[in-house]
Amino acid sequence: MSGRIADRLGGIAPFHVMQILAHARALEQGGRDIVHMEIGEPDFVSPAPVLAAGRQALLDGHTHYTPAAGLPALREAIAAYYQNRFGVEVSPRQILVTPGASGALQLVLGVLVNPGERVGVTDPGYPCNRHMVTMYGGAPVAIPVDAADDYAVSVSQLAAGDGLRALMLASPANPTGNLVPLARLRELAGQLAVNDGYLICDEIYQGLQYGVAADTALRLGRPNIIVINSFSKYFGMTGWRVGWVVAPEWLVEPMERLAQNLFLAAPTVGQYAALAAFSDASIEILEQRRQAFETRRDLLYEAVSGLGFGLTCKPQGAFYLYADVSPLAADSRHFCAQLLEQAGVAITPGVDFGSHLASQHVRFAFTTGLQRLSTGIERIRAFLAAGA
Amino acid sequence: MSGRIADRLGGIAPFHVMQILAHARALEQGGRDIVHMEIGEPDFVSPAPVLAAGRQALLDGHTHYTPAAGLPALREAIAAYYQNRFGVEVSPRQILVTPGASGALQLVLGVLVNPGERVGVTDPGYPCNRHMVTMYGGAPVAIPVDAADDYAVSVSQLAAGDGLRALMLASPANPTGNLVPLARLRELAGQLAVNDGYLICDEIYQGLQYGVAADTALRLGRPNIIVINSFSKYFGMTGWRVGWVVAPEWLVEPMERLAQNLFLAAPTVGQYAALAAFSDASIEILEQRRQAFETRRDLLYEAVSGLGFGLTCKPQGAFYLYADVSPLAADSRHFCAQLLEQAGVAITPGVDFGSHLASQHVRFAFTTGLQRLSTGIERIRAFLAAGA
Repeated sequence: MSGRIADRLGGIAPFHVMQILAHARALEQGGRDIVHMEIGEPDFVSPAPVLAAGRQALLDGHTHYTPAAGLPALREAIAAYYQNRFGVEVSPRQILVTPGASGALQLVLGVLVNPGERVGVTDPGYPCNRHMVTMYGGAPVAIPVDAADDYAVSVSQLAAGDGLRALMLASPANPTGNLVPLARLRELAGQLAVNDGYLICDEIYQGLQYGVAADTALRLGRPNIIVINSFSKYFGMTGWRVGWVVAPEWLVEPMERLAQNLFLAAPTVGQYAALAAFSDASIEILEQRRQAFETRRDLLYEAVSGLGFGLTCKPQGAFYLYADVSPLAADSRHFCAQLLEQAGVAITPGVDFGSHLASQHVRFAFTTGLQRLSTGIERIRAFLAAGA
Repeated sequence: MSGRIADRLGGIAPFHVMQILAHARALEQGGRDIVHMEIGEPDFVSPAPVLAAGRQALLDGHTHYTPAAGLPALREAIAAYYQNRFGVEVSPRQILVTPGASGALQLVLGVLVNPGERVGVTDPGYPCNRHMVTMYGGAPVAIPVDAADDYAVSVSQLAAGDGLRALMLASPANPTGNLVPLARLRELAGQLAVNDGYLICDEIYQGLQYGVAADTALRLGRPNIIVINSFSKYFGMTGWRVGWVVAPEWLVEPMERLAQNLFLAAPTVGQYAALAAFSDASIEILEQRRQAFETRRDLLYEAVSGLGFGLTCKPQGAFYLYADVSPLAADSRHFCAQLLEQAGVAITPGVDFGSHLASQHVRFAFTTGLQRLSTGIERIRAFLAAGA
């Protein structure tokens, strides 16, 4: 027996990166060596102090639910992080701890968006955003961004799409690694406010920045800015599933109510472990890793440029390089499939991040070590030479 | 500044049990001693083998994402559990591991329900169910159940509400502790199938059963039965946030796609810890706890009956007693508030579970030890005597 599934699934494509990953694993099981430049999570294990705090929480028997808004001590620690690292004052009451940034996205869109309301998402951008909007019956509006304006949404684009209930963007961004300057965020928030719209800033790559200090949209102090963050990327805690949202205080009670119904609370052991993520010992480790990512970025940027890909701007954050493959191939999806099959290098086609110039672009993730990156580059060089 | 929130929040009342819990905590901070019979999670810490497996997973550095459908080894272990404990054959490919049963509910409703479609929920029942239906734009249809038919939905009620896309029920149930016999589940699944409807069986209290062996709706082998379960209740792993769903295989791929977008994956350390939940050593501990719950149930049932509450059937599962307070008070919500304030005993009013006869009922949770239960009972006795 089979039957029909809900219409919303029709709009949710599987991530090609997952198919690529699955195909890569299959090739590996057949004995092939694959260089993974498709994976969107740090290769590092969580910092030792975080692991130790997790083990201690289990020794202490912390296996019950926390409050829906998260451990009070963690909400306070996050507020203190904004104060200590960015000099920005945030009340712990504005912070909800969530099951990853995904949980935060569910809450924010759940309290803001009525069916039929329009929510701007960048194209390219994190693909789950538009599906989350659809889940609540909202209408995602793709806003094309490209290298000409450093992959940032412009105020003129918003004016064209007036009446947006919210605009979602990320800084640093996936897949481009680009930062959106605070001045631009201020303009966008101002324009959105005209129609009671919100700016939802995804800062989950905050801290993974190169040659420029990390910052936060919260510095702007605008009442219509909501910030989403996570312990996954900079803090290296992907599998723990702990994120957070910072919102105006009046939105917190409804978000808490929604959290009780959608997921009860974030995982307890992960919340205790996350308490150790802000310690000096953890930050020291994380800063070393940040430097390692920067070295990888520099290597990859030079090499990919030398291979003939088009590269317009050097990513200042995250661990991705978004490259124009059109000088080398007509279709990025086909290119990625061939590259994996023939050269044993896994990268992600642009189609995973939207449709704007998607078939011209590929994403390289530098979530593997320098030696493997070099191996991957040499394989791509040979692959291109063979095809030429 | 404040603004409007999405309409869906209007239909989502906060759990009164949360307000009661918060009020109880406030009283405790003021020096009062409160007996907690409102809390819906086991008082026991997770079994020692589970804690040890969690610590080992951290020592082994298992901090990355798992696949969206869960660790393959855990999907296999769950399938083996159905085989070994219930003699029921389930393929690991039919099983998705989720962030708690909440995550499973999101997936199941997400792949089944289109906006406007009707989904039956029992009244009384788990309150999140109807809110999850609403989240997807579905229409929850409350189906009143009461003691006269052992709190089970009858086929005649379904015929009246024909065209249901799905019916959600729990066995053992919250708040009544009642079981729905397999014969009834078979009838309901058959009736639902007439209109391509699904029976969604919540078995999260499976195993916490008294005087009757645990069973599963999967035994019926019906292609329109979907089972949701969790490591939270019987396995004592609430805060880890790991549950699962067993569904027809053709539904698994769309659920996996939705999982990638809604939450990526269940927490990794919890999945490794859960692998130890099925071990003989864990089951031995869990069976001792089951017996402890049974002793508590017996004590509470006798005592509450002796206090003058109406009790129609002795709960055969979960850790709740649903009692008719109408012989003693006109309104259960007022009764619960007074009982907490004046006697220092926290219980939950029926209104948290629906509207059918809700103002006549209260829920006692036996999630605290025998001595505290006895203290609570004596306080209620004194409270009633003072009021009479």
